[in-house]
Amino acid sequence: MAPKKKKARQQRPLENEILDPEIVLKEVRRCKALLDKQKPIDESTVDLSAYRVVKEMTGDKVAKEIHDLFLKCAESILAGNSFKFDVPSRAAGNQHYVPELDRIVLKQNTSERSFANVSQVRKTAIMTRVLSLVHEVTTKGIHVTKRDLFYTDVKLFKKQEESDAVLDDAACMIGCPRSCLNVVAADKGLVVGRLQFREDGDLIDCTRMGVTGKAIPAYIDKITEIRSDAEFVLLVEKDAAYNRLAEDRFYNQFPCILITGKGQPDVATRMFLSRLKQELKIPVLAFVDSDPYGLKILSVYMSGSKAMSYDSASLTTPDIKWLGLRPSDLDAYALPDQCRLPMTQKDIDMGKQLLKEEFVLKNPAWVRELERMLQTKQKAEIQALSAFGFQFVTKVYLPRKLRQGDWI
Amino acid sequence: MAPKKKKARQQRPLENEILDPEIVLKEVRRCKALLDKQKPIDESTVDLSAYRVVKEMTGDKVAKEIHDLFLKCAESILAGNSFKFDVPSRAAGNQHYVPELDRIVLKQNTSERSFANVSQVRKTAIMTRVLSLVHEVTTKGIHVTKRDLFYTDVKLFKKQEESDAVLDDAACMIGCPRSCLNVVAADKGLVVGRLQFREDGDLIDCTRMGVTGKAIPAYIDKITEIRSDAEFVLLVEKDAAYNRLAEDRFYNQFPCILITGKGQPDVATRMFLSRLKQELKIPVLAFVDSDPYGLKILSVYMSGSKAMSYDSASLTTPDIKWLGLRPSDLDAYALPDQCRLPMTQKDIDMGKQLLKEEFVLKNPAWVRELERMLQTKQKAEIQALSAFGFQFVTKVYLPRKLRQGDWI
Repeated sequence: MAPKKKKARQQRPLENEILDPEIVLKEVRRCKALLDKQKPIDESTVDLSAYRVVKEMTGDKVAKEIHDLFLKCAESILAGNSFKFDVPSRAAGNQHYVPELDRIVLKQNTSERSFANVSQVRKTAIMTRVLSLVHEVTTKGIHVTKRDLFYTDVKLFKKQEESDAVLDDAACMIGCPRSCLNVVAADKGLVVGRLQFREDGDLIDCTRMGVTGKAIPAYIDKITEIRSDAEFVLLVEKDAAYNRLAEDRFYNQFPCILITGKGQPDVATRMFLSRLKQELKIPVLAFVDSDPYGLKILSVYMSGSKAMSYDSASLTTPDIKWLGLRPSDLDAYALPDQCRLPMTQKDIDMGKQLLKEEFVLKNPAWVRELERMLQTKQKAEIQALSAFGFQFVTKVYLPRKLRQGDWI
Repeated sequence: MAPKKKKARQQRPLENEILDPEIVLKEVRRCKALLDKQKPIDESTVDLSAYRVVKEMTGDKVAKEIHDLFLKCAESILAGNSFKFDVPSRAAGNQHYVPELDRIVLKQNTSERSFANVSQVRKTAIMTRVLSLVHEVTTKGIHVTKRDLFYTDVKLFKKQEESDAVLDDAACMIGCPRSCLNVVAADKGLVVGRLQFREDGDLIDCTRMGVTGKAIPAYIDKITEIRSDAEFVLLVEKDAAYNRLAEDRFYNQFPCILITGKGQPDVATRMFLSRLKQELKIPVLAFVDSDPYGLKILSVYMSGSKAMSYDSASLTTPDIKWLGLRPSDLDAYALPDQCRLPMTQKDIDMGKQLLKEEFVLKNPAWVRELERMLQTKQKAEIQALSAFGFQFVTKVYLPRKLRQGDWI
């Protein structure tokens, strides 16, 4: 045990950590250079003709598409046929992972929703109502929440899940991401650091947002003029670690942008990260808990959730690097036993499930880490690093990780 | 039924609503004038000698108090007595509502936690550890989350609830609000509108915070130089309604500050509201759902939660006006039947419980509204107003409510 203890002590020189950005950021810059060399995926070389790919649209364009949909319905009725919609299927069987794009797309299966069919009449009525409401908001150029939409006709929609689901169907049918329908979900993400942008015309300077930072807007289309001198994005799973980094103004020492989705990220945070990566072309380093749930959250940022697969382009951020907290860190940083938690059976099942998933399998280093977690049956939250002192994470752990290029 | 229908139609002139701020804000200004005339409660005239009242302290002062506590412990040990703390009881029996202050305070009961007592040794050890950690953060002048604190010694604390509870005990024992211990909970509130302040030195201008606004900081002590030309605060229960008002920049038309705690408010949002009311002395108008839960949330803002009663001064905002959505609004604004929901048995039980509570009983108009809710057995969310159009709330409902001084 003696050598291990010695190693543990070596790993904690709170005083002597190298903090010179020029040294610490070398590996980050190498990563950025690789990104720059990476040829952008030319979507035209990928044969997507067999798939349904959605594209961004302006409000006017959405309104026009809805107009056209109803014209088609009117023609069908006038021709003596039924009032019906062809709704793309969002079921698992209609989903397809495209490795070249590293995204899930939809196949072309559609199902008919006909007003004349007793089992479909209600869904058809809901779709009609939703399309008419979306037409109203896109024409007026305002945004509403899913809850607003539901409440315009509680009697028809009955449950919010029903109007929400039809809303996704409507976006699929129109062929745009749901965000283009001007119907948003609640937002909860935060951003702080070396970033400026305009939100609805207001200049937002995230270097001057106090310690809490700026709430990430649900209205992604109102964000313009993104500017930044950050060298990387640090994606933090939970707000406790985010708060620590924000209060210590970590981004002033190592130019970066701090983002948190406060656990399972909402759509707004995922779109915001995706937009940042696309525009700034800097590495995204993830700082999540060392448990299956942390990896699951990473996968939501990276490949999107199955329910929203039709909209994966604007929602996903491929190529996120897993910086920490990794299962191997537990020993490498000699995390005391009392800060490691035993995995529950549910954790273990979830971990085994993750070992079969595409986004893990394609990265051997991730597979090794996950196998190590399942073998040791130990997990730990980012907060476990507080055991070495509350500022260990900003003064030792992260600078060292960055300097060593210790991400996978 | 005919006259009722006519009334309903009269109530919805989307076009002809008076929007001139000089006319609309007359009642708000009268309310503000009354506030100005209100003599501030002179706490010295209230006999609080029998109660435990906490007061704000700087980090240095907290560190010194902890130092003194341990000196007393050391003296007790050296005198051959036990190592023990006298911890104030936070149980319901030790709580007292002071009508003059409109706050809950603690009576003087304390219980001994002695290291020599087998049943108390663990709690005493936890208290010692928590005090030592609080001493560290207050001395360094940094803030940590409750989760950070828990993770410094998982083996001792076992569950976060235990370190959280002891943290409240520690604040009580030191005699300051928990926020002065520099240990914060997660924050989730938002603010936008006619307000400027400094957060950790950064100037935050909430008129230029895009549509989402600023995340309300958990670190209330880092907020300085609060400035505002707002004539009232509009406290919104949920973020859907907040988003609507923020996107329509309601605060530009009628100078106000919009705040939401996204449902059940966190400590940071409650402290922030309390601070605004104290410094700006403007009316706080509440816009909550017309259901018992909406009232319950109002009560948390107004009188605080029982668990934090020792800290009620900095956490509570007395004299919040209930603007809407009130049970009488459902008929007054002829809300369509399909937007009204039947109350569940749980709602009804909660409503009956509220009818017995101090903060409702002292306002006869509130009692009448709650009785009406229980009698009609109908509830409705703010979102129900969307039935008249998504912008009905900003263009008709709120301007009319303000003009008529229709709050209770």
